[in-house]
Amino acid sequence: MTTQDASTREIGWHKAYLTGSRPDVAVPVRQVHLTNGRDVTLYDTSGPYTDPSVQTDVRRGLAPVRENWIIGRGDTEEYVGRPVRPEDDGIKHTVPRGGLRNLDAVFPGRPRLPRRARDGQPATQLAYARRGETTPEMEYVALREDVPPQTVRDEIAAGRAVLPANVNHPESEPMIIGKRFLVKVNANIGNSAVTSSIEEEVEKMTWATRWGADTVMDLSTGRNIHTTREWVLRNSPVPIGTVPLYQALEKVDGRAEELTWDIYRDTVIEQAEQGVDYMTVHAGVLLRYVPLTARRKTGIVSRGGSIMAAWCLAHHKENFLYENFAELCDILAAYDVTYSLGDGLRPGSIADANDEAQFAELRTLGELNTIAKRHHVQTMIEGPGHVPMHKIKENIDLQQEICEEAPFYTLGPLTTDIAPAYDHITSGIGAAMIAWWGTAMLCYVTPKEHLGLPDRDDVKTGVITYKIAAHAADLAKGHPGAQAWDDALSDARFEFRWEDQFNLALDPDTARAFHDETLPAEPAKTAHFCSMCGPKFCSMKISRSITERFAPDLAAPSSDADIEAGMLEKSREFAAAGNRVYLPLAD
Amino acid sequence: MTTQDASTREIGWHKAYLTGSRPDVAVPVRQVHLTNGRDVTLYDTSGPYTDPSVQTDVRRGLAPVRENWIIGRGDTEEYVGRPVRPEDDGIKHTVPRGGLRNLDAVFPGRPRLPRRARDGQPATQLAYARRGETTPEMEYVALREDVPPQTVRDEIAAGRAVLPANVNHPESEPMIIGKRFLVKVNANIGNSAVTSSIEEEVEKMTWATRWGADTVMDLSTGRNIHTTREWVLRNSPVPIGTVPLYQALEKVDGRAEELTWDIYRDTVIEQAEQGVDYMTVHAGVLLRYVPLTARRKTGIVSRGGSIMAAWCLAHHKENFLYENFAELCDILAAYDVTYSLGDGLRPGSIADANDEAQFAELRTLGELNTIAKRHHVQTMIEGPGHVPMHKIKENIDLQQEICEEAPFYTLGPLTTDIAPAYDHITSGIGAAMIAWWGTAMLCYVTPKEHLGLPDRDDVKTGVITYKIAAHAADLAKGHPGAQAWDDALSDARFEFRWEDQFNLALDPDTARAFHDETLPAEPAKTAHFCSMCGPKFCSMKISRSITERFAPDLAAPSSDADIEAGMLEKSREFAAAGNRVYLPLAD
Repeated sequence: MTTQDASTREIGWHKAYLTGSRPDVAVPVRQVHLTNGRDVTLYDTSGPYTDPSVQTDVRRGLAPVRENWIIGRGDTEEYVGRPVRPEDDGIKHTVPRGGLRNLDAVFPGRPRLPRRARDGQPATQLAYARRGETTPEMEYVALREDVPPQTVRDEIAAGRAVLPANVNHPESEPMIIGKRFLVKVNANIGNSAVTSSIEEEVEKMTWATRWGADTVMDLSTGRNIHTTREWVLRNSPVPIGTVPLYQALEKVDGRAEELTWDIYRDTVIEQAEQGVDYMTVHAGVLLRYVPLTARRKTGIVSRGGSIMAAWCLAHHKENFLYENFAELCDILAAYDVTYSLGDGLRPGSIADANDEAQFAELRTLGELNTIAKRHHVQTMIEGPGHVPMHKIKENIDLQQEICEEAPFYTLGPLTTDIAPAYDHITSGIGAAMIAWWGTAMLCYVTPKEHLGLPDRDDVKTGVITYKIAAHAADLAKGHPGAQAWDDALSDARFEFRWEDQFNLALDPDTARAFHDETLPAEPAKTAHFCSMCGPKFCSMKISRSITERFAPDLAAPSSDADIEAGMLEKSREFAAAGNRVYLPLAD
Repeated sequence: MTTQDASTREIGWHKAYLTGSRPDVAVPVRQVHLTNGRDVTLYDTSGPYTDPSVQTDVRRGLAPVRENWIIGRGDTEEYVGRPVRPEDDGIKHTVPRGGLRNLDAVFPGRPRLPRRARDGQPATQLAYARRGETTPEMEYVALREDVPPQTVRDEIAAGRAVLPANVNHPESEPMIIGKRFLVKVNANIGNSAVTSSIEEEVEKMTWATRWGADTVMDLSTGRNIHTTREWVLRNSPVPIGTVPLYQALEKVDGRAEELTWDIYRDTVIEQAEQGVDYMTVHAGVLLRYVPLTARRKTGIVSRGGSIMAAWCLAHHKENFLYENFAELCDILAAYDVTYSLGDGLRPGSIADANDEAQFAELRTLGELNTIAKRHHVQTMIEGPGHVPMHKIKENIDLQQEICEEAPFYTLGPLTTDIAPAYDHITSGIGAAMIAWWGTAMLCYVTPKEHLGLPDRDDVKTGVITYKIAAHAADLAKGHPGAQAWDDALSDARFEFRWEDQFNLALDPDTARAFHDETLPAEPAKTAHFCSMCGPKFCSMKISRSITERFAPDLAAPSSDADIEAGMLEKSREFAAAGNRVYLPLAD
């Protein structure tokens, strides 16, 4: 089922592909080659960048792996899209050098026209699943998750899972978000007015997916929003999410009260034509909920939530996203953009967790979820935030009940407020717990949360921390196959196969580097001890000696008499072998 | 109730003392001075090192704050202790330069004789509590935990809490370990044959307590064990724990089968005379349990457990610690050394969690707990290890039931095996959960777990991670006062008091450094935005604006009509103020 290049064995792993019913359904995996001759197959989000047989060029973008499937369905068509304007890049009052730009100018790769559904029919994976169609995308994720394609189709049809796949992002490798599947991790990137560049954001995206990010949200807010997003999308093997409100606000120079439905709508179309796979929409921040936040410890901490709250107050009108939600659904359905219904009133401190404002909005998100489903739009629901451990379960239980088991997509939650610079950890604790209880995707938090923009190291730390939380949840949920990874690593540890331990680790580089700090010499990696204990003292070595002596022929004891008989025999063998409890060192 | 030096206000915090019924009951606290004129009082484990009015000298040791209390009780006496021998420092076959050494030589500080109970009577806090005596130590921890002294006494008397306080460690500041109190964190230090030095270990101890370690275990195994421990004890403001078995094994050159009760007993007395406050004793590893581990994924991973298992197998006899447990109790009772009954058969991988071997040993620990209590020895119980999230609660529930609510002291547990180099995080998740459910003390895990010896940075990362887990649990348990810390920090965050945020953070240095990376200039720390959003975009700023405009006179709404009326009025005010949703920037 997998292809393999024998010469890659020596580097410990290689990129392989699981092939489905047609040759273009080729699901990437990370094939780890153990020194005992066995292989372990791991889920792989890193895209073509880790396949040495593929030449990638960030200026040309990735190959459009889904293009034939999309065209083949025949339900979408190319059209002359919305013209790209300077203000799309936050340039409102001046014409940039070189004049006005168009899509070809902002991204040098292949020119293309945007695509959308013909005749206003929904071109969504939800609509297909409801019709009983198993798309190549569904087959792809079935192989990826090692489940039957029908399970994928059924979960999508029921609205319990989403497969974010904009028809204008054919470069993305299909993945699924739902509680029956592996828990997913999102990494946020995004420049801001203060810092960062386009190249840095593209690099952050490939870096995040290399370490396991399943989706990436581009939260850029400064100059070059449109161009940054274009580069990110054309080079991204994972679904890209955005918050269109941020760009819409740029177009009105940051004055929330000047926002209009038309500006917002235009921005959504702009981003849908580019290929954004899911969008956070803060349609649940209703006028009447805003006063509920006035007495909070930390008010409204969601950027989108605070923008919409300001708009509502300024106009004393209902949230225009709520008022125009049905029309928005039709737009999203035409491109298969997935909703991520934003929790604009999420708590920003332990004190504000699970309060009236938060749960009032959640009930509105449930209402919107029902409308979105009616329009065949795939939908997930965003969740908090800052929540102490004893209040976490109520969040997922209530969300699942109110939103008819739509996938929950949570930020953390952070389980305490006292550790700025360590909020990947305060939130990793809450993330693992809420994922165990049913959250489908976790939005990572980096060490820089509350303090500044994450750099390359922060992105990696955030992703690794959240992969830990996600996998710990997969184990606790009893996800089929999850424990095989732990078992393979623990076997390697017990058998002192250091190289296998490193290659199986979530972060092989750091594991190897930490080991080498204390025992840098090459022989140490096969020596039967580690620096924690020293040559004479390693408990695993002693224990392995016990197992080697006693386990091969000691049947699982069924009675005390059996044990005693076996023990007596083994005791004699032990003495005959010179009472040596330590194995000879490999030296 | 606290003393204060006004001049320290400008550095953001100062060391203060809460005084009790007598002047020598002076409980250190970290007094944080906020820029809004308020103070926040935090628990402080850092000892006299952070008090500028105290001169410390690592060669002389700390002042013996408990000495008068110990002497004043009149139930102990000095005696000529066991002579210190070269093999105590792992020097068996050669006489070191300068000849044989004694205690005065290994530590240059004040000479002293060891002390123990008179007439074989127990001199333990448990015995005192049972007699209804409230010792100065109990009063000290009552102030420290902000609970009535009687609560402390009752919890100790019931065996639900321990106050580790060897009569030969008068330098230690009393602290309590029990589920009714703040969750505590232990940090392990210790050299090994491969690396490290005495100075480094003392430095690691003061470093760990500076960041919040409540106790420190010295797990040294190489040369200079005795001397290292002496230096650590004389300079430690927190209780010190050890595993005497490690040193005993050194004395027989690492050959487990040559261990004897006499050698072990002598080592326990050696360490008790030095002042070790609690000792891990692997008396629950019974001969008949060893075969239960042979088919495990990772056998026996506890060093102590594997040593005792090897001994049992070599002799085909019952564990000599189990056989001589009553005598061991009498020794510990004479010095008020607390038992930490070791879980030698704890699981070392997800696959082995909650198995027959582990729970068989736990039942034996329950039996030993009952014997220890009969001898008035304070006792806690050690727990795992590697446990997936869904199997964690069973561990604490079973331990509390079997061990009559004796304090549980757990290592993690690690919730997955796949992340070497990040096991502070895999285990921090499990630690927070098991502490929420009742674990009294958490043994930290550093990023180097499984890979090598922790350095200074690893110790800090491990301690901070575990302080997060402990505090998250304090919040979830509803510990009185725990949330005040989070509230103070969240208030500072919402009000853009950056300096207050830093000073209230678990790690002010890193929080400040992270912030300064993006916005290094001094004005940024009072500016009303942060680099995550940029000047125009900070949600907290918008939200604060809403609160300032609407909260002062907007009563908590009692009906929809109230809301509407208030909102309309506020909408007019908003327009009258020029629709400005952003506050003017400070600069």
